[in-house]
Amino acid sequence: MLPLELHRPAPLAFLKGRSFLSTGDMSGGEFRQLLDAALAAKQEKAGANLGRPLAGKTVGLIFFNPSLRTRVSMTVAIQQLGGSAIPLEIGAGTWDLEHRDGVVMDGMKVEHVREAVPVLCQYVDALAVRCFPGLKSWEDDLLDPVLAAFAKHATVPVINLESAMYHPCQALADMMTIQETSPGGFRGRKVSLVWANHPKALPLAVPQSFALAAAQCGVDLTIAAPKEYMFGDDTLANWGETALAAGGSLQAVYDRAPAFDGAHVIYAKSWSSPKFYGKPELDLPLRAKYQHWQVVEEEMQRTDDGVFMHCLPVRRNVVVSDGVLDGPHSVVVRQAANRLHAQKALLAGIFA
Amino acid sequence: MLPLELHRPAPLAFLKGRSFLSTGDMSGGEFRQLLDAALAAKQEKAGANLGRPLAGKTVGLIFFNPSLRTRVSMTVAIQQLGGSAIPLEIGAGTWDLEHRDGVVMDGMKVEHVREAVPVLCQYVDALAVRCFPGLKSWEDDLLDPVLAAFAKHATVPVINLESAMYHPCQALADMMTIQETSPGGFRGRKVSLVWANHPKALPLAVPQSFALAAAQCGVDLTIAAPKEYMFGDDTLANWGETALAAGGSLQAVYDRAPAFDGAHVIYAKSWSSPKFYGKPELDLPLRAKYQHWQVVEEEMQRTDDGVFMHCLPVRRNVVVSDGVLDGPHSVVVRQAANRLHAQKALLAGIFA
Amino acid sequence: MLPLELHRPAPLAFLKGRSFLSTGDMSGGEFRQLLDAALAAKQEKAGANLGRPLAGKTVGLIFFNPSLRTRVSMTVAIQQLGGSAIPLEIGAGTWDLEHRDGVVMDGMKVEHVREAVPVLCQYVDALAVRCFPGLKSWEDDLLDPVLAAFAKHATVPVINLESAMYHPCQALADMMTIQETSPGGFRGRKVSLVWANHPKALPLAVPQSFALAAAQCGVDLTIAAPKEYMFGDDTLANWGETALAAGGSLQAVYDRAPAFDGAHVIYAKSWSSPKFYGKPELDLPLRAKYQHWQVVEEEMQRTDDGVFMHCLPVRRNVVVSDGVLDGPHSVVVRQAANRLHAQKALLAGIFA
Repeated sequence: MLPLELHRPAPLAFLKGRSFLSTGDMSGGEFRQLLDAALAAKQEKAGANLGRPLAGKTVGLIFFNPSLRTRVSMTVAIQQLGGSAIPLEIGAGTWDLEHRDGVVMDGMKVEHVREAVPVLCQYVDALAVRCFPGLKSWEDDLLDPVLAAFAKHATVPVINLESAMYHPCQALADMMTIQETSPGGFRGRKVSLVWANHPKALPLAVPQSFALAAAQCGVDLTIAAPKEYMFGDDTLANWGETALAAGGSLQAVYDRAPAFDGAHVIYAKSWSSPKFYGKPELDLPLRAKYQHWQVVEEEMQRTDDGVFMHCLPVRRNVVVSDGVLDGPHSVVVRQAANRLHAQKALLAGIFA
Repeated sequence: MLPLELHRPAPLAFLKGRSFLSTGDMSGGEFRQLLDAALAAKQEKAGANLGRPLAGKTVGLIFFNPSLRTRVSMTVAIQQLGGSAIPLEIGAGTWDLEHRDGVVMDGMKVEHVREAVPVLCQYVDALAVRCFPGLKSWEDDLLDPVLAAFAKHATVPVINLESAMYHPCQALADMMTIQETSPGGFRGRKVSLVWANHPKALPLAVPQSFALAAAQCGVDLTIAAPKEYMFGDDTLANWGETALAAGGSLQAVYDRAPAFDGAHVIYAKSWSSPKFYGKPELDLPLRAKYQHWQVVEEEMQRTDDGVFMHCLPVRRNVVVSDGVLDGPHSVVVRQAANRLHAQKALLAGIFA
Repeated sequence: MLPLELHRPAPLAFLKGRSFLSTGDMSGGEFRQLLDAALAAKQEKAGANLGRPLAGKTVGLIFFNPSLRTRVSMTVAIQQLGGSAIPLEIGAGTWDLEHRDGVVMDGMKVEHVREAVPVLCQYVDALAVRCFPGLKSWEDDLLDPVLAAFAKHATVPVINLESAMYHPCQALADMMTIQETSPGGFRGRKVSLVWANHPKALPLAVPQSFALAAAQCGVDLTIAAPKEYMFGDDTLANWGETALAAGGSLQAVYDRAPAFDGAHVIYAKSWSSPKFYGKPELDLPLRAKYQHWQVVEEEMQRTDDGVFMHCLPVRRNVVVSDGVLDGPHSVVVRQAANRLHAQKALLAGIFA
């Protein structure tokens, strides 16, 4: 047996000391290097090959929104690498944070990110932030204002734990799961991102991060959604170019059948449309109309022995039937488990 | 002095890798072995004889309800054995969890235990769960539905931190405290569980776990409660059989005096009656009538130099007078302290 | 290079095993020794010269009120010294605590500090407590009732993380920051505590702790506030005597100009007046009248190249203008950073 040092993969130099806001921050090649590191870490019990690069380090986990998987998987990832996590729930046990510049702070928010972020950076070695969109103004959400403010004012690396626009840690685990179930590699794999019905309007971060990451990995990506919920033409064009450059392709369809036929991966997810921001009177009747946008066993039979994926939490018998979720093709638990390994590889790179 | 290894008690093989849902899961003999291990751990500073069996391990602490003693004592127990605790408050900073099977999840609950529990088990090495009863349907509470769902879907040991029906960690600390104050052993000790007045309906988990554990240890158990709040005949019969088999006895009385006369232990606790579930108009007037069911100094003088116990938190001058609680016979702080040692012995057994 | 042991400062014997409720608990000389230890700890990466005096120890962090800096800086301080922090938010995830003696507990509060505190002391090695004033009865607040109850019933050291009357950890960081920016020492430094406008009534703990600490260090302290918000004569007289004894001085003024002219330090802070407790109809119109009590750049130009301090969180363009806070004279981030180092020196002393 070789000494441990020789098993250890070369550190991912491109991550060292950097923030991780979107997989778009790295090239497709770098992204796939990170996936390889995550898969290697998963082989070894507790990722022993990664060592303890966070020994004596602390990571602040800043939650503007609820979290289960993200909170636990990040905490365990940090601990297994030798560090400590300090969770903070903004507005519950801490002060509400203002992020707009130049504002006269005579309202409800008692602290500005311009102080809070630099101060936190005096105590911790990295900040990981969850900040969902407001779902009120698409122009505001597009700027990813809270994450951008953290990134601007931080003096330590910032890790995105799901912002208004992106959820790159989820995308890492997603592509890692597809790689594990694609022995021949990403090339030629038919991967379908399928819109799902849901009782309320959900953010776009997960589907946007997934589509971008899938394109970066060069799969053949199909996006299926009712016309009213399809992504904008510019966005689709960008992902299409990225996919082409990586040896893949992109098609957008308004029907479910072409997404399922021969697919290797079905990724179900509900998301809202910027068109309906603040207009539930337009959105809710449509959702009643699209109740059949639920993944069921009959549809899965049209796939090429495809796996079923979802980022969780998922509403059973609304987004997907019990039969699919509890059936042999569901990999949602493995997908969630991969969050831990992906984040360990990421952290080990940042703190290399 | 002997080397450390020789001081170390034999691991409790019957606990290894197992869940701990109720003391009824183990035989009376096993229970008393666990008590001995807890008492041995308490002798040594920080339970050094237990070693660090949780090194590199993580335990998720899942709270559906508030906690003070349980949260801190479990966290410290885990840390002193070398591990890390990750607390999660369900519905506050995490997603609300559904536990019913086959449901169409179009309401308030966004995640099902069927995903949440297996996913958490990918990250942590054990799950400890607090899930109080709904106090609305006795049939539902009897099934201990949340705990049962965790136990069913978990792939790591599950530890009950107080469920709808049982609070076995409390019962461990309770019996450990009685053992400490009973130099001659459990046999022949008169232990009285005495109902107490309270401004609102409380769960049955603590008194049920205490009565079961006391029966398993073979004490002479007296249960005193107003007729309306007495446990059901079947329940009493079960405990009575258990007590008999262990060399003890059980009597149920509707008056206070026979519970105090010559008692070695007074364990005060308020609990609700399934008869009054959802019927405060029947319950509250009774409570006004039973305001004298408060432990006072005059009553304690009828005991055989008996100790006063309560699981805490306790309402002063409602459940028990200041005089008793602050007096020389109160062992409530020692009883709470024993939570730490009992849980360390338990965890050391599970992770042996 | 000398062996590490020789670099290590002599332990601060006067702190060992003691509580830290106010800087008034120690002499001016002891206070300055503690500041020197904090500055020495700051020189070394992660305060390596302090060693790991908290190895295997746990500190309970009890929050009755929100916290950001305090929570993170205490947690990191404890961890860097080898220990673990357990945060508890009272009333959110734990039981509401009663602190009055002799009360019949038939209301909302389900647990008394008389049990909760001794019990916590069975699990942890120190308790750090944040308990803001009620701002309803000045007589009650003056007794600092929650902190006093913790101090009375605890069997381990209690550390004040901001009580009704004092915030001594903040005062430590404040004076450490002034010392860092005063190469010639505290003597002869003009330090001005300046009242600031604010949309609501704030506690007095920070300004009271700062004024006391500044007096103990012997600076020339100017307190500027509108007449209605000036501290009482007795309080001012006490601080004045303390300042004189330490070689400094105290003046109280109702105008801003004399506070800024030639000042070396401007410490802005809003606080309420006991006169207006429960009388917003008297307080709020005054605040409208005093809107110009906001620190702006023109005022800072009257200082002797003075630094701007605030304990944070601060309301921008209400308490202080963006220009001052973002300008070269603001030391608020350094001041917050010093919380970490000051608390490490404090904890190292207590656990020496």
